[in-house]
Amino acid sequence: MNEIKIFVPATIANVSCGFDVLGLCLDTVGDEMTIRKTVQKGITISKIIGQDLPLDPTKNVAGVAALALIEKVNIDFGFDIEIVKNIKPGSGIGSSAASAAGAVFGINEILGKPFSREALIPFAMAGEKLASGTAHADNVAPALLGGFTLVRSYQPLDVIKIHTPKELYATVIHPQIEIKTKDSRSVVKKQISLETAVIQLGNLGGLISGLYTENYELISNSLHDELVEPYRSILIPEFDTIKKTSIENGALGSGISGSGPSIFALSKGIKNAEKVALSMKEVYSKTGINFDIHISKINELGIKILAFK
Amino acid sequence: MNEIKIFVPATIANVSCGFDVLGLCLDTVGDEMTIRKTVQKGITISKIIGQDLPLDPTKNVAGVAALALIEKVNIDFGFDIEIVKNIKPGSGIGSSAASAAGAVFGINEILGKPFSREALIPFAMAGEKLASGTAHADNVAPALLGGFTLVRSYQPLDVIKIHTPKELYATVIHPQIEIKTKDSRSVVKKQISLETAVIQLGNLGGLISGLYTENYELISNSLHDELVEPYRSILIPEFDTIKKTSIENGALGSGISGSGPSIFALSKGIKNAEKVALSMKEVYSKTGINFDIHISKINELGIKILAFK
Repeated sequence: MNEIKIFVPATIANVSCGFDVLGLCLDTVGDEMTIRKTVQKGITISKIIGQDLPLDPTKNVAGVAALALIEKVNIDFGFDIEIVKNIKPGSGIGSSAASAAGAVFGINEILGKPFSREALIPFAMAGEKLASGTAHADNVAPALLGGFTLVRSYQPLDVIKIHTPKELYATVIHPQIEIKTKDSRSVVKKQISLETAVIQLGNLGGLISGLYTENYELISNSLHDELVEPYRSILIPEFDTIKKTSIENGALGSGISGSGPSIFALSKGIKNAEKVALSMKEVYSKTGINFDIHISKINELGIKILAFK
Repeated sequence: MNEIKIFVPATIANVSCGFDVLGLCLDTVGDEMTIRKTVQKGITISKIIGQDLPLDPTKNVAGVAALALIEKVNIDFGFDIEIVKNIKPGSGIGSSAASAAGAVFGINEILGKPFSREALIPFAMAGEKLASGTAHADNVAPALLGGFTLVRSYQPLDVIKIHTPKELYATVIHPQIEIKTKDSRSVVKKQISLETAVIQLGNLGGLISGLYTENYELISNSLHDELVEPYRSILIPEFDTIKKTSIENGALGSGISGSGPSIFALSKGIKNAEKVALSMKEVYSKTGINFDIHISKINELGIKILAFK
């Protein structure tokens, strides 16, 4: 294989009660990446369509992730990366994670899969570190593995794929506002009460149990975040209204996607997910803020190969 | 039915990463209770064998739980309770929970099961409130439902039964020392860092995933408690040695049972559980402290009916 074209999905990190540990993979929104073998050693990024992002591989998350990978293999050639960037940076649905995960996935395929998808996570995390300052895995893991993923531990890194109920759909609204990372971080409390932690533990346990048993009522009852949402949601216009309206229109629950500003809702069945999308649209149409809405089944496969030669 | 004799199991609350939410049910250690219909209305406790506990039903957890139940049904008779108390009070393996759960279970059976096992939990919790000051469910739930249980929420009460892996065994050592509840509570930190909470969330998610998928390695990796064990374990002689020795002898993990002083270990297969028991015995034999050791398969059924007439 000399060239591969892949679909690299957007992802939702946290998923309410799973703050900093859970993530899920979307199916209908993502980047397209083409990776090709080059005679020249190292990594080049020849083209990025759709966003104004650096082509210098040491300043681009895809490049940094790719460089982390090729450092670990003994090869006398290199790779060029082209990205059709459909996931908007700063949207909170794993834009940087997609670039990082896609780059290492594509290179690994061309190399004949020396690494499993799980083993690619640390390389993709190196890209995430460039983007956000911390090498977190809660978006790159679902992008690479698909479905729901749990980052059980960072030391050592241990990522677990959780069963995905068959009829689970996500609706995501991306309000096109910028939340400064500094603001998004500064509102989060660094100390919490033991009582709050116990409530979150109960809900996370409930959600994971609900996913394995495909118990949609339990999933719904468990989708609460005590740790971050109460503080971070004030930075997102109409958050409370979107959440309330989504649930009134049949969503199982709703919360902040990653660190926002995107808001997600989970629903049983595509009809409910579509109804939720319409209700989100109605709320945001009145704000004067531009927005995108995505409806997606949970993508159990993660990154998909579109073509290769 | 006029009389029922039941086996009421001991239970392990918390189970390391499941602080205040998880519990599991034992099979080889428990009380025997006999409940019989009486012409006289109300509740009497005619006999308690094995422990010096109050016979006044308003001062006994079994009595208080029973009274909470019969307040909700319209009957012109009452019940007498006899208890063979094998679970030592203050051991940390759900002694009060067994009395409370057994009383309401037995009465419910004689009444023709107006309540499900789940619906009996709040009545049993009323008994727990007498024993410890708080109406917690993390011991009464596994006693009533069997297996592993998760208290997802108290408001509203939502208890979920989690899948139990087939080869999972517990070994429990009960050092016969008294830890004052005041001391046990005062060492627990009321405020924790967000970082610590996230580590606990990862491990709880891992444990629940490991239980559903019967992944013993994942169960083992997840059995850590960041919230309470580091502080409470200092009140239990040889805790660190018991934990280390248990794991060296094949246990998947080890921690404090409830608020102690009992220490539990979980193992795959009875042979490992027995080996762990021997290693615990060796450590404690040198201390001069009296102790009991129990080996038990996880009891998936909870309370069992022994006889009725």
